[in-house]
Amino acid sequence: MEQLNVALIGNRGHWGYFRNAVQRIDRINWVAYSPGCADSPQRVIDSAAELGKEIKVYDDYKEMLDKENIDCVVIDGPFDLHAEMCCEALKRNKHVFCEKPIALTLEDLAKIEETYKKCAPGVEIISMVGLRAEAPFLTAYRAVQAGKIGKVKMVNTRKSYKLGERPAFYKERATYGGTIPWVGSHALDWILWFSGAKSFSKIEAYHSTTDNRNHGELEMTALVSAVMDNGVLASASIDYLRPSTAPTHGDDRVRVAGTDGVIEVMKSTVTLINADGEQVLEQLPQRGIFYDFALHLLDGEEALVDAAQTFELTRACLVARDKADLA
Amino acid sequence: MEQLNVALIGNRGHWGYFRNAVQRIDRINWVAYSPGCADSPQRVIDSAAELGKEIKVYDDYKEMLDKENIDCVVIDGPFDLHAEMCCEALKRNKHVFCEKPIALTLEDLAKIEETYKKCAPGVEIISMVGLRAEAPFLTAYRAVQAGKIGKVKMVNTRKSYKLGERPAFYKERATYGGTIPWVGSHALDWILWFSGAKSFSKIEAYHSTTDNRNHGELEMTALVSAVMDNGVLASASIDYLRPSTAPTHGDDRVRVAGTDGVIEVMKSTVTLINADGEQVLEQLPQRGIFYDFALHLLDGEEALVDAAQTFELTRACLVARDKADLA
Repeated sequence: MEQLNVALIGNRGHWGYFRNAVQRIDRINWVAYSPGCADSPQRVIDSAAELGKEIKVYDDYKEMLDKENIDCVVIDGPFDLHAEMCCEALKRNKHVFCEKPIALTLEDLAKIEETYKKCAPGVEIISMVGLRAEAPFLTAYRAVQAGKIGKVKMVNTRKSYKLGERPAFYKERATYGGTIPWVGSHALDWILWFSGAKSFSKIEAYHSTTDNRNHGELEMTALVSAVMDNGVLASASIDYLRPSTAPTHGDDRVRVAGTDGVIEVMKSTVTLINADGEQVLEQLPQRGIFYDFALHLLDGEEALVDAAQTFELTRACLVARDKADLA
Repeated sequence: MEQLNVALIGNRGHWGYFRNAVQRIDRINWVAYSPGCADSPQRVIDSAAELGKEIKVYDDYKEMLDKENIDCVVIDGPFDLHAEMCCEALKRNKHVFCEKPIALTLEDLAKIEETYKKCAPGVEIISMVGLRAEAPFLTAYRAVQAGKIGKVKMVNTRKSYKLGERPAFYKERATYGGTIPWVGSHALDWILWFSGAKSFSKIEAYHSTTDNRNHGELEMTALVSAVMDNGVLASASIDYLRPSTAPTHGDDRVRVAGTDGVIEVMKSTVTLINADGEQVLEQLPQRGIFYDFALHLLDGEEALVDAAQTFELTRACLVARDKADLA
């Protein structure tokens, strides 16, 4: 493909992955934008102007999808509209790069999967699992793939965020989706990725909204444990309890224990212990989750994630959240 | 009490806690020993001689309990005999310091609790949760008690051990009890202790015996997650995957996240983040789990653990193991 024509819907979350790739890859052609809701388009228009891009703006994102010559749609609208927007894009055989989770209910996820099955061959959909592209995690992943810890047996993950003061839509389950799908999707994605499994076989989860500083239905803490289809045991600890004084927004950790070693990512450092002793690994270059997806669509390079993983991750997050509700 | 007369049964596990206290407290009078099984008594006799102690040795531990003037029994026999030995000691109104877990089945635990209810007032039983007395964990605990992280919301724990080559009795569930009760008891004890809860309200667990290097029924990995009776969420990661090249036998970690801060013990260092920023805490003096129990019995000083916690910890470990079996 010579050029990748892209339209953006919404700016509620991590559309910056797309913006960064636009800066780095000339062959990405950002053609249009729609907020996909009542949000003002101005911030995105200004942001595009800073990149020297003049983009067409639509009130109605479906009209944009119909009228513009688009290969790929970046979806970052209201969380509760992700699923509908994915379906609308897929119906038109557009590649999709959507904020995670791509659906807030298992029913909506099923609709996306049904729509995807009817797509033209080669249409792809991934979600914004941006941490796969960050140097420490990618470095650890490549080391695991290279056999540095033998056969993977256990994966432990942590996502701890500062709460701050969140917009109103975080305070309702209907518009937020829950902390396991929102914050925990990264932790569960690491589990899926590092375990080398195709799916989660067993999932248990707990969460709690207590002491959430007037954040309505937002869960402050959550725990997920799982057995993967290849027998790997996995756990995720998720919370908004990181103190505002902490040096970084997030305390992101992954530990992978295998038959021949243990690798751990903590404070952006990758530490490996195996028969060669303990060492801090030199890190691979930073990638970009949309950057790599764009190069995949343009030139057939390997993407960091695929549709099957995107669907399974979303399913696992929603199953875990629903189990936690019932626990 | 002027003097504490103590008898020891067995030397399969951590009876060293008792031995260390004998060295430090003159008023502990070690009067007798019985292996409690076919094990040779020689190692213990030699060890006592090194301390300048001449101890009476019995083949039959019940005879020892009947004939000797004993206040307290240290129980470290075969794991599957802990429960019977506890009952025999309690029936005779002896204080008990027993290797954890004090029972390998919920039925045996119930027998101990029934026997304990019939004891004379003031008889005490605790298990060898020695990590409560180690400086880093005790320091973190006191900081939590002092309100440094506000109200506790989540506790995450890790126990990762080197496997090495274990004795035969580790390879059968009937004689070993399982990795969650054996290794995981420390992790679940931290959860009970740091959470400030009285009990585990909900427990889920997984474990796996795969790739256990010819260790029969021994589980190499386990995960436990729980909700405590005070609403705290808690998780434990337990494994024997620590590489033989690692600098220490165990990778012991505790993280406690509260409404006003997070405290973490890792590599024997205690780090606190709260409104005052991030700091490494100066550590309190090391204690000893039997040392403190002996001073408690002798002089009424505060013990680090009590009977109710001992029973609840044992119950939680066995429930978790049984749930993992069925998962």
